[in-house]
Amino acid sequence: MEANASNESDVARRYISFKNKILEMQACLTAIEKCPIPVVCAIHGACIGGGIDLSCCADVRICSPDAKFSVREARLGLAADVGTLQRFPKICGHGSRVRELCLTGENFDAVEALRIGFVSRIESNLFESAMNVCQTIARNSPVAVQGTKLSLNYSRDHTVEEGLNHIAMHNAAALMTDDLIASVMAASGSEGNFQNMLPMAKL
Amino acid sequence: MEANASNESDVARRYISFKNKILEMQACLTAIEKCPIPVVCAIHGACIGGGIDLSCCADVRICSPDAKFSVREARLGLAADVGTLQRFPKICGHGSRVRELCLTGENFDAVEALRIGFVSRIESNLFESAMNVCQTIARNSPVAVQGTKLSLNYSRDHTVEEGLNHIAMHNAAALMTDDLIASVMAASGSEGNFQNMLPMAKL
Amino acid sequence: MEANASNESDVARRYISFKNKILEMQACLTAIEKCPIPVVCAIHGACIGGGIDLSCCADVRICSPDAKFSVREARLGLAADVGTLQRFPKICGHGSRVRELCLTGENFDAVEALRIGFVSRIESNLFESAMNVCQTIARNSPVAVQGTKLSLNYSRDHTVEEGLNHIAMHNAAALMTDDLIASVMAASGSEGNFQNMLPMAKL
Amino acid sequence: MEANASNESDVARRYISFKNKILEMQACLTAIEKCPIPVVCAIHGACIGGGIDLSCCADVRICSPDAKFSVREARLGLAADVGTLQRFPKICGHGSRVRELCLTGENFDAVEALRIGFVSRIESNLFESAMNVCQTIARNSPVAVQGTKLSLNYSRDHTVEEGLNHIAMHNAAALMTDDLIASVMAASGSEGNFQNMLPMAKL
Amino acid sequence: MEANASNESDVARRYISFKNKILEMQACLTAIEKCPIPVVCAIHGACIGGGIDLSCCADVRICSPDAKFSVREARLGLAADVGTLQRFPKICGHGSRVRELCLTGENFDAVEALRIGFVSRIESNLFESAMNVCQTIARNSPVAVQGTKLSLNYSRDHTVEEGLNHIAMHNAAALMTDDLIASVMAASGSEGNFQNMLPMAKL
Amino acid sequence: MEANASNESDVARRYISFKNKILEMQACLTAIEKCPIPVVCAIHGACIGGGIDLSCCADVRICSPDAKFSVREARLGLAADVGTLQRFPKICGHGSRVRELCLTGENFDAVEALRIGFVSRIESNLFESAMNVCQTIARNSPVAVQGTKLSLNYSRDHTVEEGLNHIAMHNAAALMTDDLIASVMAASGSEGNFQNMLPMAKL
Repeated sequence: MEANASNESDVARRYISFKNKILEMQACLTAIEKCPIPVVCAIHGACIGGGIDLSCCADVRICSPDAKFSVREARLGLAADVGTLQRFPKICGHGSRVRELCLTGENFDAVEALRIGFVSRIESNLFESAMNVCQTIARNSPVAVQGTKLSLNYSRDHTVEEGLNHIAMHNAAALMTDDLIASVMAASGSEGNFQNMLPMAKL
Repeated sequence: MEANASNESDVARRYISFKNKILEMQACLTAIEKCPIPVVCAIHGACIGGGIDLSCCADVRICSPDAKFSVREARLGLAADVGTLQRFPKICGHGSRVRELCLTGENFDAVEALRIGFVSRIESNLFESAMNVCQTIARNSPVAVQGTKLSLNYSRDHTVEEGLNHIAMHNAAALMTDDLIASVMAASGSEGNFQNMLPMAKL
Repeated sequence: MEANASNESDVARRYISFKNKILEMQACLTAIEKCPIPVVCAIHGACIGGGIDLSCCADVRICSPDAKFSVREARLGLAADVGTLQRFPKICGHGSRVRELCLTGENFDAVEALRIGFVSRIESNLFESAMNVCQTIARNSPVAVQGTKLSLNYSRDHTVEEGLNHIAMHNAAALMTDDLIASVMAASGSEGNFQNMLPMAKL
Repeated sequence: MEANASNESDVARRYISFKNKILEMQACLTAIEKCPIPVVCAIHGACIGGGIDLSCCADVRICSPDAKFSVREARLGLAADVGTLQRFPKICGHGSRVRELCLTGENFDAVEALRIGFVSRIESNLFESAMNVCQTIARNSPVAVQGTKLSLNYSRDHTVEEGLNHIAMHNAAALMTDDLIASVMAASGSEGNFQNMLPMAKL
Repeated sequence: MEANASNESDVARRYISFKNKILEMQACLTAIEKCPIPVVCAIHGACIGGGIDLSCCADVRICSPDAKFSVREARLGLAADVGTLQRFPKICGHGSRVRELCLTGENFDAVEALRIGFVSRIESNLFESAMNVCQTIARNSPVAVQGTKLSLNYSRDHTVEEGLNHIAMHNAAALMTDDLIASVMAASGSEGNFQNMLPMAKL
Repeated sequence: MEANASNESDVARRYISFKNKILEMQACLTAIEKCPIPVVCAIHGACIGGGIDLSCCADVRICSPDAKFSVREARLGLAADVGTLQRFPKICGHGSRVRELCLTGENFDAVEALRIGFVSRIESNLFESAMNVCQTIARNSPVAVQGTKLSLNYSRDHTVEEGLNHIAMHNAAALMTDDLIASVMAASGSEGNFQNMLPMAKL
């Protein structure tokens, strides 16, 4: 039924069918954001339209000097609808340049992406640099790292007071982990030896 | 009645009358923000107090090198009450410098306005530059541009999840526009030929 | 009872006891944020873990060139739970670098703290500079300054519309202050002479 | 332009035009809710569709024994869109019968309207009874009555904590009214003698 | 992995695993609430614990005279965690009796379920009566019915203003349906002839 | 300083001082609501003004046949400001009668208090009946009872989705209690034997 939904002659039924398709595509991208493990995104070449939507769902973004960015949708005749207009200004603020980029659809380069806070760094050896971030994070306790990401995502969309209450509930349980001991040992020179949190959690 | 409201001897009645006046003034400025068409603001000379309130309602801000800015209200004995304290930190973040500027009321110049993200660019030929931004936006489909502004404003004040749901509802209808075809044609070299959205929408 | 709470053998009771302790510690820091008078924070040397939590509660932060910062908690095996994950990204945005710092726990220096908006300035004569900010603020009307801080805090956690309504209610009463006259006089050259708002309000 | 909006051939433009029309109609009804003076609604005969939308905006509803009610829209092929689906369940709860009435569009009578809390009373001498409510309210201080309505409307849409903060701000100013003295005198037997709040406030 | 999650020796890992299990169970029940088609629930015999959780997700509830209800979880040593504490008071209000039933876990009968608004009616011929409700709803336009349910669910969790904006967006598209003509014809005596909205939408 | 606050001649300073006093009084009443243990309120005689404010903070209310109620504040010249306008309609709904009682300040009796859901029951042997509720609750596991109250309070002020997430976090830890075994034993006939949660938790 979904397949021929756009052939519907009734406008309201087409509307409902389109809406469900958009929600489905949004959910695909949101899955990245909801992944309990941090996601590091290495950007090179063209990061246009869907590329922005996708990379906005990552936690950390690094790009090569040749990376080119654009919130292209406005230029293609539609408002971006799978996350850019929601996440890009939460990442970079609702500053003048961010709105300008969304409304004009024009390109911006790596230097500007760095200036507005979209990427952490511009690196020539892009993948090595991205892997380094992953490894640095992976050296920390999975309980700590996943709690941090969970709390950052929650706090982005809630008041400070609600965010504080949320992390208090989370940590009251999470602080009973044995990782705390391993972390302290790691901090004092020996290697941390953490159990993975989830099968996929081999960071 | 409004006219002599501040002559009221009863404090509570004066309070209610003042409050209604402030709400009315706020609504004047909010009208700019609610305008479905993007607003580009060209700032030169002094942008002080009400100037900040006003320019915060625009989508894009460009300034000349001589522009001078100040959240002057604190220095004049009142908390700014027609939008600066609400919109300025959503534009530039709640960073240390933003709060300092609001609490001290001191001046900041064009370079600092750029650094904190309040303006997109400093331009000597200010009006030409501002008109260029308008024209670049106007080359895009009105349906796309207005949907983008609507979604940016909504998303600023809602969670990512609510923003996603909102744009899904909007685009499910907006994607049925014939502009999409015109946009694709424009993107492939020919000039886009869009109907205006609203009489005033001749960007 | 609180004292031996962590000796509880029942996991759920330990959880509830831990949660209450965390909430109590959070309240200690939040007290700084709730202080009606602006708080200026002078940072030098190591500002690590709890140092970030604490300084995030200030309104203005200035640091010396040697200041070193770190959201250390992730490295110590826990998600930061007394405010950093809530306040740091509201101050500096949810940009890539902010998340990276929270997830890796690595150090950042004064220059980076300035770049991401965490501090207003790097100053060699740190305390003199911080006192200057205090004095500049103290020259303004206490009613104006405290209303500004109240509104900034409220607006950070609410929509623009709710923030506008809040300041309208506040100012409708606050504008009846005699400080307005004193401020206008001060602005025109004579010294402002404000009553203090609160005993502790001698800024 | 509005007039021929529905003749638009472009679906997206028709959508935007329809949406603006609906918002405009909603605003007409919301004006009743926003009226600072309490509104008492006397219902007799048919209160169907728009009648429910309208009466939901009142503060107090009284009906005659012959009153007949229906959320008719579902039966007419549309979801009610000028307030019933928002206000009716905030008045009567999201109980089973309320949803059933909205989804079936079937009639309900005065007895059921009373049972679900939609009306305060069933009265044969309807207008006299409604006027009695008005007069009872009008005997109270306008400052008190309008503050009560303002707070009830605000609290309906906010948390208890936010509602408490809102009334604290309001009352801190409103308690400075001279009405308090007049009220205490009225309560001890003499007639209250209040200034009107607003020209239209002659209750 | 999930299977042996509860065997985890690390308390924090067990906590995270438990939380994910609870969220998964909640999602099973929420699926009923999210079903775009109204759900009518016929309750007879024991509706205890999970029975309350489940029936709270329906739109309309009817019960037989012998139905017995209980929010049993408190008596079994846990706070109900798959929806009762969230949905039951939104259905019946946060009145004294509702809280008492949640805290004591004691039984209540059909008459009380009706009194507090949990069920619409007590019917001896339960299934026939429930089918009648379904058929009455099914006689209405699917576009209207599904829009009504969508708006009721959205409005339950949002302010009146946000609910109004939501239905305006929805109806601006939904009112372009051909069902409106069919509905008007049906209302004037002839049988409505609606296309189904979804394959499963054969009400 | 607080003592002579109302003697302030500056209106704005008086306003701020009044506001702080009101917030302080509100906090006294909110402490009852925040008490982790359920509070049962036995009402007899006059429950007027502050009596409503106070009893709204309880979880369960029972009254004697002679109880008389009134939201008296409107009649005394002020909007109720320590909780009634926030909590009373969350308990009883925003129905017509509730608003009428708040706006008129007129009395209502035990029968009406029962009808609108303010009390659970009217009981001649009031205190025995209230103690029975306490004992029934106290027979349940403290972990379960306190989790239930916590979740009810949280859910009253949040969306269903946020309430579900909150109880999932809470229960993921709380279900590790040994009370579950004791509860199951109690449910199968033997007496539950729970550790107290808090010293004051001897229900």
